[in-house]
Amino acid sequence: MMEVKVVENIYLLVLVTLLSVLQNAFFALKVEKECKIHNTHTSAFERVSCASRNCMDAYATFLAVMWCAGLCLSQAPAAFAGLIYVVVRHKYFVGYMGQSCQSTPGFLFGKRILFFLLLMSMVGIFNYLLVCVCDNNYTGYLETITKAASALLLIP
Amino acid sequence: MMEVKVVENIYLLVLVTLLSVLQNAFFALKVEKECKIHNTHTSAFERVSCASRNCMDAYATFLAVMWCAGLCLSQAPAAFAGLIYVVVRHKYFVGYMGQSCQSTPGFLFGKRILFFLLLMSMVGIFNYLLVCVCDNNYTGYLETITKAASALLLIP
Amino acid sequence: MMEVKVVENIYLLVLVTLLSVLQNAFFALKVEKECKIHNTHTSAFERVSCASRNCMDAYATFLAVMWCAGLCLSQAPAAFAGLIYVVVRHKYFVGYMGQSCQSTPGFLFGKRILFFLLLMSMVGIFNYLLVCVCDNNYTGYLETITKAASALLLIP
Repeated sequence: MMEVKVVENIYLLVLVTLLSVLQNAFFALKVEKECKIHNTHTSAFERVSCASRNCMDAYATFLAVMWCAGLCLSQAPAAFAGLIYVVVRHKYFVGYMGQSCQSTPGFLFGKRILFFLLLMSMVGIFNYLLVCVCDNNYTGYLETITKAASALLLIP
Repeated sequence: MMEVKVVENIYLLVLVTLLSVLQNAFFALKVEKECKIHNTHTSAFERVSCASRNCMDAYATFLAVMWCAGLCLSQAPAAFAGLIYVVVRHKYFVGYMGQSCQSTPGFLFGKRILFFLLLMSMVGIFNYLLVCVCDNNYTGYLETITKAASALLLIP
Repeated sequence: MMEVKVVENIYLLVLVTLLSVLQNAFFALKVEKECKIHNTHTSAFERVSCASRNCMDAYATFLAVMWCAGLCLSQAPAAFAGLIYVVVRHKYFVGYMGQSCQSTPGFLFGKRILFFLLLMSMVGIFNYLLVCVCDNNYTGYLETITKAASALLLIP
């Protein structure tokens, strides 16, 4: 009961947050496209600084989408996806810092996880609207499906 | 009743958040001032990278102030202002990416919207303190006024 | 009662958030190490831009950890620590903008305050787990200790 009440108080905010997350993804894609053309990060400082900045730029987006997914639908799968994101981010950062002869990873990372969290938030909002309009509550089913789906994130 | 209880648990945090938002605005103004002197962003990568970074720098501030406004006073106007901010941000980014002969927009954007959200949060906190001290509850009036005021953001 | 319920709904999210905060600290330490080797920020624009970027990079981390500490354990000490952080950040920014002959401060700042907030969040989560498992509620004692400990942050 409490969850529905909480969602009632935040669902519009969550919707706008999701929209801004989508916008962030659009910006990031643009930067990545330009990044592929210009490839002049040579010194160690520039590489590590660039890697950190890329991670930090995505951090607020990640936090926003993880909290929205956790509050709107189900806590455990959102936290699990967040945990995997942290691991992926670590691997990205370490890979970026490596030798310059290695292929440096792109501007974006953890796209699949962020997309999963975004989808979870949308399903949560949709379920809330369904509860309001049709009085059909599929929250139990959705939580089971989400838990099963979050295990798929472990596939590399 | 529930709203007052929630605000009771977060109003100090919200106050500090607002203070840090003001500080962000101060930093951003400084950078803008220096930016006007040095104007050496020429290549497409540098322009798009700079635009994205400006947007990302303001993103955490925007999220913080939107959520504070939404939780402390009224959800719908805060979400509406957030929606307009996303639109303004998109226009800013596209304008920044345009031809270099165009006048590039400054460092800051959406100042009016962020100020509106900041004001909403402050009014919400003030209303909460009023409820505690004087037992006068103007929440209904404030919500009506805020809804009307948010329509003024549509004026370009 | 209500606090315990809220923590019940967010404690996994908080744990992952704390993990990502630790990761941010790891990245920041790396950048600081590289920063000490390369020291080529000479013009006023570069200095102010770098200072602002450092502050903004840490901003999402600060907000996340302050809200987690405030929601999981006790509101007033978290907000007080946040207030001190804002003051320290201001001093850092002003110091960074100063004459280049001055010793510029490092990449990181407010480490002690962020660590205090991180510790508060962890104690809050641990206390919640203790309430669930052993039915021992030390929340009152912990709040008193936290309030006393937050006063120690005033020592420069």
